[in-house]
Amino acid sequence: MTQLVKVQNFNVSSDGVGASENQSLEHPFGDAVDPGRLFAWAGATASWPNRTEPGGTRGLDDYLTRDFAHNIGAEIMGRNKFGPQRGPWADHEEWQGWWGDEPPFHTPVFVMTHHQRPSLTLSDTTFHFVDGTPAEILAEAKKAAQGKDVRIGGGVSTVRQFLDADLVDTLHIAVSPFELGTGLRLWDSPDDLLDRFHLEVVPSPSGVAHHLFWRK
Amino acid sequence: MTQLVKVQNFNVSSDGVGASENQSLEHPFGDAVDPGRLFAWAGATASWPNRTEPGGTRGLDDYLTRDFAHNIGAEIMGRNKFGPQRGPWADHEEWQGWWGDEPPFHTPVFVMTHHQRPSLTLSDTTFHFVDGTPAEILAEAKKAAQGKDVRIGGGVSTVRQFLDADLVDTLHIAVSPFELGTGLRLWDSPDDLLDRFHLEVVPSPSGVAHHLFWRK
Repeated sequence: MTQLVKVQNFNVSSDGVGASENQSLEHPFGDAVDPGRLFAWAGATASWPNRTEPGGTRGLDDYLTRDFAHNIGAEIMGRNKFGPQRGPWADHEEWQGWWGDEPPFHTPVFVMTHHQRPSLTLSDTTFHFVDGTPAEILAEAKKAAQGKDVRIGGGVSTVRQFLDADLVDTLHIAVSPFELGTGLRLWDSPDDLLDRFHLEVVPSPSGVAHHLFWRK
Repeated sequence: MTQLVKVQNFNVSSDGVGASENQSLEHPFGDAVDPGRLFAWAGATASWPNRTEPGGTRGLDDYLTRDFAHNIGAEIMGRNKFGPQRGPWADHEEWQGWWGDEPPFHTPVFVMTHHQRPSLTLSDTTFHFVDGTPAEILAEAKKAAQGKDVRIGGGVSTVRQFLDADLVDTLHIAVSPFELGTGLRLWDSPDDLLDRFHLEVVPSPSGVAHHLFWRK
């Protein structure tokens, strides 16, 4: 079984924006991006992990939502996905990520940062804080994944770094039907990737267009 | 977590035919149905379990193929899915199903038959041969599934029995773009189920239309 490097369930607007400037505790995706609006398609499904009431759809969007953990052995994320701080970890005793005591990863997670910090275990997720090139960090994550796949979790600039280094095997990008205009762009157009990837665009009744890429 | 009763990755022609008369060792789906043609969409994917060479697509059809085992704890199948014999099991020492030493189920499987036969374990699949109403057999399968979902594996008449008894929660039916004209029909039209189920029809670039049903 090939060990894949995957971007999954990554959400952007119709103009490719996944986050914006001015990230803060109140605005984890920046002050111009409402993540609830970008994630709405997944939040409506029966398999959404944060669902508090029964119900939810069991159509196409549900397949993509419940596939999130399938055969994933490790995640790599940028520092800004882990928290809004910049510079050295002044408060690392206090800040343990956005996700509370039960982070939704359930695997080792490698947080890319130039600033050292001890590893942190919350339930069945352990965060390691690592400095290095994408290729170096991927080698570490692949080892930790023990043959399973590695997820590139984002944000936008982390996904772009791994695409630029040509280290990504598959991507699932959910493109919402509205423009954001300003912010951090994953791409100018999905066509940017067609030199290296096959692309299937699967429109969902929820309004999202699932873009599924895999290596040529 | 709800324990679901699911029909998954079940293939029919555009006119609803999933198998035909005159099942035999040479024609497990009957003499008018070529299963390779009905399954072609799944066989082209990277996740197809019988794949012998690397490669395969990683688009929509691959999501549906790799979801097959997700959270499934038991399968119920009709006797004709297990083998082409009719009447008492004269050859039960010899016939162990179509799948060789490594059946693709990896769970307990309940084979509906009026004819007694001892249980049979092949690798991590155990086949139990059971007589009873769909509701009775489902109760047994749910217990064996230990909280996971139960798959109704087919064939056509087994799926219809469970639909008639109103025991199915979700269905994924892959409808191929060709007619077969004659054979065992799952439905006259997918609309037959709309009184009880939501339906999303998701066309795949492979030509198949994935029909995803879930309870209203």
